[in-house]
Formats: sequence, structure tokens, C-alpha cells
Amino acid sequence: MTAPLTPAGSPPPRDLLARYRAGDLRALARAVTLAEAGLPGARPLLRAARERAASGARAVVLGVTGSPGSGKSTLTDALIAHLRARGQRVAVLAVDPSSPYSGGAILGDRIRMLRHHADAGVFVRSLASRGALGGLSARTMSVLSLLEGAGQAGTAFDWVILETVGVGQSEVDIAAACDHTLLVLTPAGGDGVQAFKAGIMEIADVIAVNKADLPGAARTVRELMAAQGLGAHDEHTWMAPIRQTIASKAEGLDALIDAVEAHRAHLGETGLLARREARAEFEVRSLVQERLLRLARERSGDLYARVARGELDADEAADTLLEQA
Amino acid sequence: MTAPLTPAGSPPPRDLLARYRAGDLRALARAVTLAEAGLPGARPLLRAARERAASGARAVVLGVTGSPGSGKSTLTDALIAHLRARGQRVAVLAVDPSSPYSGGAILGDRIRMLRHHADAGVFVRSLASRGALGGLSARTMSVLSLLEGAGQAGTAFDWVILETVGVGQSEVDIAAACDHTLLVLTPAGGDGVQAFKAGIMEIADVIAVNKADLPGAARTVRELMAAQGLGAHDEHTWMAPIRQTIASKAEGLDALIDAVEAHRAHLGETGLLARREARAEFEVRSLVQERLLRLARERSGDLYARVARGELDADEAADTLLEQA
Repeated sequence: MTAPLTPAGSPPPRDLLARYRAGDLRALARAVTLAEAGLPGARPLLRAARERAASGARAVVLGVTGSPGSGKSTLTDALIAHLRARGQRVAVLAVDPSSPYSGGAILGDRIRMLRHHADAGVFVRSLASRGALGGLSARTMSVLSLLEGAGQAGTAFDWVILETVGVGQSEVDIAAACDHTLLVLTPAGGDGVQAFKAGIMEIADVIAVNKADLPGAARTVRELMAAQGLGAHDEHTWMAPIRQTIASKAEGLDALIDAVEAHRAHLGETGLLARREARAEFEVRSLVQERLLRLARERSGDLYARVARGELDADEAADTLLEQA
Repeated sequence: MTAPLTPAGSPPPRDLLARYRAGDLRALARAVTLAEAGLPGARPLLRAARERAASGARAVVLGVTGSPGSGKSTLTDALIAHLRARGQRVAVLAVDPSSPYSGGAILGDRIRMLRHHADAGVFVRSLASRGALGGLSARTMSVLSLLEGAGQAGTAFDWVILETVGVGQSEVDIAAACDHTLLVLTPAGGDGVQAFKAGIMEIADVIAVNKADLPGAARTVRELMAAQGLGAHDEHTWMAPIRQTIASKAEGLDALIDAVEAHRAHLGETGLLARREARAEFEVRSLVQERLLRLARERSGDLYARVARGELDADEAADTLLEQA
């Protein structure tokens, strides 16, 4: 028997798991590609990643969200540099769950991050995949787990940052996908009041008022604090620390990192374990929904037309689809 | 046999369908309450509503979305007044799928609309229900169908407007839930560029640059037009008309209404039928997902914990849940 041909430069699959476990970044890149494509080859890698993450060695998994234009990408880039200066290893997953239509514009913002490419302590990956429901996909969750569980003592990432374009469901999903959620706002246009009205303040564990050199930063902080006071709370409630940053000048980042670490201390072992289970739940539920939507597309026949004509209840149609699952 | 007791003032159920069909607004309000609660009593009403909507008499079903602070509620209120002046009957469903936390602030914006309460040609209802997935719920879709199918010639609504707080999944859902989608932006803070970057421009059939008396309105319109030009298009592509409005002064509304009607003409009979089927599909799929999420909550046991520990694949866990469906 001759050995099967492998494309030049791709590692033989039997080595991949060992190299992924050792912290080889090229093996990680390959593993991410497998997971993103939903290929079965990713499964042993994913199990290894979760075993490692559950064994105690734990990265800070931080979600970064906020409205487009708040400077999330610039802030993430500044965080990378700052964490590297502290000797931390950093992985970043930048997800654009919106359409390919806007792909160019988003990409432009992120080119900056590529300057870290030569740094072996930094891994940056962009995903364009959109979940079946418009938010984060189950595969994005898999990739996040791979980043979290890669390597071993000395080669593992200390921080894993998930950054998404703050739009649609992804804004809500990010809180379910990470241990800590950083909400990025700006002093412009009453961002604070809008975040409150839109109900996204609740998902924040830490709030950055970025572009704090613009007029109104202090007022925005005051408004946010007033809004926080309106929510039901007691002495155990975590009140998201509000920090002013100027990402483009790398100002305010130490205080921001400290605030994330304070939230980590607040969660404690029990809280982090609960977050990890919630993240697994989110991934499994996303998978279930994605499969069901595929099924609904493939087997619906004239079901929807009949509902539209009033011949069938929506409830009856839902029963029919679920019976086929 | 004695007749069952009914609460004072509530019509006997056997009359409800007839009164709903006749266009009685109190019967409609009762029907909406039944549908919102998901009670079986709503089913014959829903079928009647869809039969009527499919029979040819068709309301303009308009979704209004946009970032918080863009003036959606004020614009909707101004649209009501303007459409009434044209002799049109209008129903408005205002949905707040965000959390109860922000309920107060939202409600404040909508109190204005209550001034139409005494007008028998206007029906306004607010729903606080949130879909299991954070967006519009299947029940919201039912209520929308009830508004669309109420009454008969002379008492039916000519326009049914669905207005949501533009946040999370609801922003994407609204395009699936309506015949026409109006995206409301403002000249402030580069709203146009942000909408483009966030990928929500695509869902718009008509765009209002509201608060057009603020500086930058003309620039925002230019940016939006430039962004439209970037998308793939040919001579059949609908380019969303961009109209400047000042809702607080009722300016620009005629041109806005004309733009919606132009989109209606563009869709034609075939296009409207396709939209109606897509809406039914969205409702059925929402129902399926809501049921499945309930199931996943009730029967998951330690499934998620095992995935978090790396003992079980997320795919295997998804299989297990789907087998129980």
C-alpha cells in the first residue's frame, strides 16, 4: 500500500492532535479550518480542547460588543498590544455575522490587527460565517473552544477575545458565548441612553466609554451610572464597571483589563463553571436549531403556502415539521 | 342547563368571530389578547384572518425599524395622522422585544400614539413579548395576522404598521415579518455608513433619513446612495428610495408614503404572494424553534455539563435532543 497523497505543506492528520495540544499555531489554524467547515476531523480536537479547558487551566474568554463605529476593532487591537506587554498570550476571533455585502468595510477595520501576525504569542482569525438564526453560529462556538483549549502550560492563550459586529442577534449571543462581555460605547449621540433603552446594558460585565476625548464622555458615564441605579440590585449584584478609554491612543486600557479581572474574581470558580456550561448549552442549542432549520427548508413542501392561505394553523404546521425531525 | 358565567363586559365567544369579521375593534382587542396568550380560542380567528388576507383585500403591512433614538415612534405617529388625513384606516403594533428593564423608557416614547385612541379608524397595541430567540415571537406574528385580516370592506385596515425597538434579532426579523420594511436613520453620527457596515441596509425597502433638520442630512443621503451603488444590482434590482423626513414637524411624509406604495407596485401580485408565504414560513419556524427550546430546557439533564467537560461532542448532544423531539 502506498501512503495517500497529502497536499503540500498540510500536516498528516495523525500528527494534528499532538501538535494542536503542544500549541503549534499552524496546527491550530488547521484545526480552526476543520471546525469552521464542520468536518468530522475537528471532533477529537474539540474534545481535547474542552478536556483541557475543564481541567483547570483557564483562559479569560472575553466577548467585545457594541454598535458599529464604537471602535471595537481598534480597542481589541489596543488590548492585544497591552496584554502582550504584560506577557500574556492572546487569541482573537473576529466574527462578521452580517452579510457579505458589508464584508469589505468590516475587513478594512481589521487589517490593523494583522500587524501582530509575526508575533508567536498572538493568533488572529476572521470568520464570516453567520448562524442560521442570524447570530453566532454553532461552528463559531467550536472555533472559540479550540482557541481556548489549544496548547499547554507556556503555549496556551491567556486571553481569548471574541469580537463581533454589533448587529442583530450576535449582540445578544455574545454574552452567551463568553465568560465576560465588554460593551463598547462612545460619548456620541447619547450612546449611553440608547444602550439602556435598547436593553443591551444588562449583558455588559464591563463597559468602555471609548473615544473619551470626544465631548460628552463624562456625561455619558454619569448617564450610564444613573441607568444602572434604576435596575433591581442588592449588595451581591455585579454593577458593570464603566471605564473611559481612547483606544486609538492606547489610553485607559490597564483600568479596563483590571475591570475584566475583577469580574473574573467576582464570578469565582463556581461562576466560571456555570458560564462554561451555559456556553456549551448555547452551542448545542445552536446546533439543534441549525439542523431543524435545514430540515424545515428541505421538507416543508407547500406547508407555508397553506398557512398563508388560512387552510392550516401555524401550530398544526409546526407539529407536522417536528414530527419529521 | 344554565349559561356559563362570563366576566362582565366580555362578549360571548360564539359572537367573537362574527364581530371580529365585521370589524368591531373591541372584538379585535379581545382576539389579540387571545392570540398573544397563545390560547386555542384564537385559532378560528387566525384562520379567518388569513383567509380574508388571501382573498385579495390586502393591507399594506409595513415594518418600521432603525436604531433607538432615530425617531421611529414619532415617525409612526406622524404616519398615522397623515394616513388618516388620506382617509386610510391604520393599525399599529408596537413591539418591545428587549427586556422589561428598559420597559419604562420605551413606553414613554409611545404614549404619544395614544392620542389616536378615540379615533375609530386607528387601532394601537403594544406587546412586550420577546421571542424565545430574542427576536419577534411567533405570537407577535399571529397578532399581526389578526390586524391584517380584521373587518371587511369599509372596516378593514388599509395599513398595518409593525414598529419594534431596533435591537438584536428583531431588526432582522422585521423584514421577514412584513411586506415592506422602512429603515429609519438620522444624520447624526454617520448613521448611514454604520447601517451599511452593519449590513442592515439590505433589509430596507424604503429609507427615511429622519431629523433631516439636523446638520449632515444631505451628506447622509449621499453616503447611503453611494453605499447602494456598491451592492450587486441590475435593472430589476429595487434600490430603496431614500427620503428625508422631520417626523416631529410632519414633514416629508407624503413622499415617504408614496415610496412605500411604489415598492408595493414593484412587488406586484406575485411578489406580495411570495412575501405572504415567507411571513407564514417565518411564523411556523418561530413556533418550531420556541417549542424546541422549551424541550431543550426541560429534557437536557446534565447534557450541557458533559459537553463542557469534553465527555460528549456538541454534535452528539444535539442528536440526543433531536431524538427526543
